[in-house]
Amino acid sequence: MAVSRSPLNPIIHPKDIKSTQPDFEVICAINAGVARFENNVILLLRIVERPINHDRNIYLAPIFNPESGGVILKSFNRSNPVNDFTDPRIITTPEERYLTALSHLRIARSQDGIHFQVEETPALFPKMPYETYGIEDPRISEINGSYYIQYVGVSSLGIVTALARTDDFRTYERMGIIFPPDNKDVAIFPEKIHGKYYALHRPSTSAFGKPEIWLAESPDLLCWGNHQHLVGQRISGWENGRIGASAVPFLTDRGWVEIYHGANKANRYCLGALLLDADQPWHVLARSAAPVLEPETEYERIGFFPNVVFSCGALYEDGKVKIYYGAADTCIAYAEIPIEQVFDGLSG
Amino acid sequence: MAVSRSPLNPIIHPKDIKSTQPDFEVICAINAGVARFENNVILLLRIVERPINHDRNIYLAPIFNPESGGVILKSFNRSNPVNDFTDPRIITTPEERYLTALSHLRIARSQDGIHFQVEETPALFPKMPYETYGIEDPRISEINGSYYIQYVGVSSLGIVTALARTDDFRTYERMGIIFPPDNKDVAIFPEKIHGKYYALHRPSTSAFGKPEIWLAESPDLLCWGNHQHLVGQRISGWENGRIGASAVPFLTDRGWVEIYHGANKANRYCLGALLLDADQPWHVLARSAAPVLEPETEYERIGFFPNVVFSCGALYEDGKVKIYYGAADTCIAYAEIPIEQVFDGLSG
Repeated sequence: MAVSRSPLNPIIHPKDIKSTQPDFEVICAINAGVARFENNVILLLRIVERPINHDRNIYLAPIFNPESGGVILKSFNRSNPVNDFTDPRIITTPEERYLTALSHLRIARSQDGIHFQVEETPALFPKMPYETYGIEDPRISEINGSYYIQYVGVSSLGIVTALARTDDFRTYERMGIIFPPDNKDVAIFPEKIHGKYYALHRPSTSAFGKPEIWLAESPDLLCWGNHQHLVGQRISGWENGRIGASAVPFLTDRGWVEIYHGANKANRYCLGALLLDADQPWHVLARSAAPVLEPETEYERIGFFPNVVFSCGALYEDGKVKIYYGAADTCIAYAEIPIEQVFDGLSG
Repeated sequence: MAVSRSPLNPIIHPKDIKSTQPDFEVICAINAGVARFENNVILLLRIVERPINHDRNIYLAPIFNPESGGVILKSFNRSNPVNDFTDPRIITTPEERYLTALSHLRIARSQDGIHFQVEETPALFPKMPYETYGIEDPRISEINGSYYIQYVGVSSLGIVTALARTDDFRTYERMGIIFPPDNKDVAIFPEKIHGKYYALHRPSTSAFGKPEIWLAESPDLLCWGNHQHLVGQRISGWENGRIGASAVPFLTDRGWVEIYHGANKANRYCLGALLLDADQPWHVLARSAAPVLEPETEYERIGFFPNVVFSCGALYEDGKVKIYYGAADTCIAYAEIPIEQVFDGLSG
């Protein structure tokens, strides 16, 4: 598929981003929610930072403490055989699981959509008890002039999706948990359809079921119901492991287009497209046969978690889909594709 | 604790219940939703039935087919080493998981609350795509003269909780999925509190988090939000494995009382009590130190799944809590306890 990557990719790199504390380092700037605001493109970046570790005998888990408002470091002896350190992102003890890095959300602004200025302080930092292991992967839905941020909270209570609102990308109002654990990859449609709000979401099941895309409806953006399974995995190679919504859906003359992600069993993440009926979004009209975007360049193939293109937002402007995406779980890249080529890649 | 079991226990036994097809047998009658209706006590029983298997070389999984409306039998060779048959309730293949029995919901009626007449046909039988492995564990909330049934649907899509309504326990209206997978042990409060409905629920998480009790709110019983973690496990012996709501909460002069279940790591299930603030049910005022009811009698200790007392409903009448409960995952038993003794067993 004739997707055009920016020659300036990656357009945002963690090495250029200031950590929130001197003894932390930013290791990833990824998976940004996207909005157009006052002639700027706004990215709400997921910034991943970790404590700088000077002791090779230990692993550190940074944990936000809602009571003090600070971050505490929990230390684990590398030689303790009851703990599992095989996944560099996770520390697993017999009682509990921890993350080795803490994510927050930060604003980047651009006039041309390519050259971004990243703010030096967080827009949203962990605050609530369900955010103690970090906040991640925001999507932004512009609804009636307000911007609604669907973000993931991780803690020892599970993985939830919460809602926040801003009108100016300077102050933010937290509105509570909208999908109970485990649930991520929530993307709220930017307008009501016949009087109801709709959202794509991705429950994770424990015994039966697979990580796939569901649809829910709401009268008020806060309470969600009438859950329906919308799209399943396919046995084809690129999306037989897990799928989930990526960008907020946008309306075209053929229906809603959803840029979603699919991973294979080896955790190689690609992006595909869904076409949903404009009036009845629970009807899937068509779906990409091949990925719209897949990890091919060096910055997509090599990084913190290799072979990943993962988007949390795109703009649909001038007949083009402008995709901002996390590459190799490390940096932000940009690509665009004419909508007609997305349509050409769909099969019924 | 001075709980009084009925000397007629078990009051409903699967051997007395007719299967829905001649080649099926009823193996459990358990976990009933409870309501008072027209001077009768109504139990909405979970009836578990399985195909009679004449071939010792195979295991059978009964699966409801939403297209034909019938039940198909999937056969698994016992000698196939890729399949796991160690849990008698579950068949696990490399691709999928199945149940060895199919549950539906059936009405039993009684004037004295002890001697029940079980109907010969189902009240609710699997119907929807998310019910293909059965429907289970109903709770009944009487709200403004209607009875709202919160029941669990199991399928290859996951474990969901759906809502149905009846005004007469003869016809039922399905109202859709109210909690996405995995979620069970939903108990909706029987009245609005300051304009909102509330429900206890029990999400199951896959990576972080434990099976514990959450609280949600709703404007309309269909859409749920503002999810909050309400009550966690305790390291004490009887509830360190999993906890969940059991009966629909009932209001006392001290607040809402919730009869909940807790299991230890060996899957021994007991019942305990929570006291929640009448106006602010997210405030847990007190909790049983010791179980209100625990498996002690032979019918509670020996059965399809041993050492289980598990309730989906209780009546609070005449100062007594009248608990109907599944015993050893096999039959229905009855016990009552004065509310003052429940209060005496609470600690702050």
